[in-house]
Amino acid sequence: MILVADSGSSKCDWVLINNHGEWVDKIKTEGLNPLLLSKKNISNTIDKVQHLLNKKHDSTIDKIYFYGAGCGSSGSGNLIKDLLYTTFNQAKYIRVEEDIIAAVHATTQEPGVICILGTGANCCYFDGRRVIQKTPALGYLLADEGSGNYFGREVIKSYYLKKLPLDLEESFEKEFGADLNLLLQKLHNVDSPNKYLASFATFIFKHRQHPFIENMLHQGIAKFIDSYLLNYKEELLDSPIHFVGSIAYYAQDVIKKSLDERGFIVKSFIKKPVGHLVNNIINKNIL
Amino acid sequence: MILVADSGSSKCDWVLINNHGEWVDKIKTEGLNPLLLSKKNISNTIDKVQHLLNKKHDSTIDKIYFYGAGCGSSGSGNLIKDLLYTTFNQAKYIRVEEDIIAAVHATTQEPGVICILGTGANCCYFDGRRVIQKTPALGYLLADEGSGNYFGREVIKSYYLKKLPLDLEESFEKEFGADLNLLLQKLHNVDSPNKYLASFATFIFKHRQHPFIENMLHQGIAKFIDSYLLNYKEELLDSPIHFVGSIAYYAQDVIKKSLDERGFIVKSFIKKPVGHLVNNIINKNIL
Repeated sequence: MILVADSGSSKCDWVLINNHGEWVDKIKTEGLNPLLLSKKNISNTIDKVQHLLNKKHDSTIDKIYFYGAGCGSSGSGNLIKDLLYTTFNQAKYIRVEEDIIAAVHATTQEPGVICILGTGANCCYFDGRRVIQKTPALGYLLADEGSGNYFGREVIKSYYLKKLPLDLEESFEKEFGADLNLLLQKLHNVDSPNKYLASFATFIFKHRQHPFIENMLHQGIAKFIDSYLLNYKEELLDSPIHFVGSIAYYAQDVIKKSLDERGFIVKSFIKKPVGHLVNNIINKNIL
Repeated sequence: MILVADSGSSKCDWVLINNHGEWVDKIKTEGLNPLLLSKKNISNTIDKVQHLLNKKHDSTIDKIYFYGAGCGSSGSGNLIKDLLYTTFNQAKYIRVEEDIIAAVHATTQEPGVICILGTGANCCYFDGRRVIQKTPALGYLLADEGSGNYFGREVIKSYYLKKLPLDLEESFEKEFGADLNLLLQKLHNVDSPNKYLASFATFIFKHRQHPFIENMLHQGIAKFIDSYLLNYKEELLDSPIHFVGSIAYYAQDVIKKSLDERGFIVKSFIKKPVGHLVNNIINKNIL
């Protein structure tokens, strides 16, 4: 059997396919970003997956395709690969790639610019054969403009720096409380601060009707376009844009409008790539 | 004897005063931000200080005044206080306050708005008697606009997102190398990512003559003013502004220009507050 994993920074979707290309099972775990988590933490999650699948299925998993945030460098990718080989010790072939590759395979077979706007942010160009990444994913400590952790941070900052209009201030307190110490302690102690920050981004989609929030959303998307997308100016002259990730999915009207104003064409929005990824893998024999 | 400590996120200055108010000794350690460091880590530094002073001086330290970044909440302040009492077990009185209080005592006895722009950023109003803080310090994971870690992050981002002009790109590579994996690994594994980020801010002061850098500096200072200082609009109508910290010190021409354009008066810039703090403590009996 073949195991395909698509791991963002927050969540990881695992799909089990049999050798005829049929879906056999699907499970969900925490994300496994090797830049943010300890080896022990990642290893525990992989063990959990193995245990769950082993309990339900007799056949051996002999191939694993793992696509993950933070797996862009050979060092971090190899860490995941080693841990997968250790746990799935009957696997004959394991491949680990950055999540942007999953986003490409999930969205298109044609040339295009493919963006991720989920917990984190990323962008690349696919020429129909190869993936070309002009700028790397920098993660929540450096960049991620327009991502879930970016918008979460903006919401928190606006509240504590007293920029929120009164009605939104009340909504924030009702939803998240007003205890900054508690927030800072959590932020500095959770395993994935980026995921914790991104949990505050739900606020903007709950309050989209508010002009302050609408403006925040437009500004964040504009920053993503300027920081990442415009590095592919030439490629965009004759390639469409595809988006993957929940922030892109829920903000698709803003993204469409912003890109339309700049003369670019958006072709698709996919909230979660794993289903499309697996289908494309099966139908088009990508693996 | 009295021990006075002024701790930023990066460095901590300790000054020993005898009971006649004379300086006896001065040492420097790592910063002791309780929001960012482990209890063990802080405890080790305090032990080191006690050991160093004990070796050189016979008299007992019976009072400690500790001013530190990240000590704004009672929880984090009490952690430092407990650790100080444990190590300096003959001390009869220990007081722990946020670093912004040290900035106030180091700069003025008159009403004024006092800002910190060092590794981190902070701002408050002093009415001549009490310190009023309308917005809290949020730290490098949420805010710190205009601070050392903000500018360091801007420099790194500009390089990896290909925004730097060619000559600056070459200078960056010469100074810091081009290995993003190494940078990200360090950033995610060092004890103080904010301090690591701030170490890249030296780049902007080395290349101040470059219009790109000058613009970056102006934008960062403008963000600090908008995010923090303008919360004290009313107080600024008849109070001057004081700045503490190395970023403020080196960027004082930009700060003066930016505030002058907005009609505000800057009164002083102090790179390191501890000397002024101790002198004011001695001369004006603040303690």
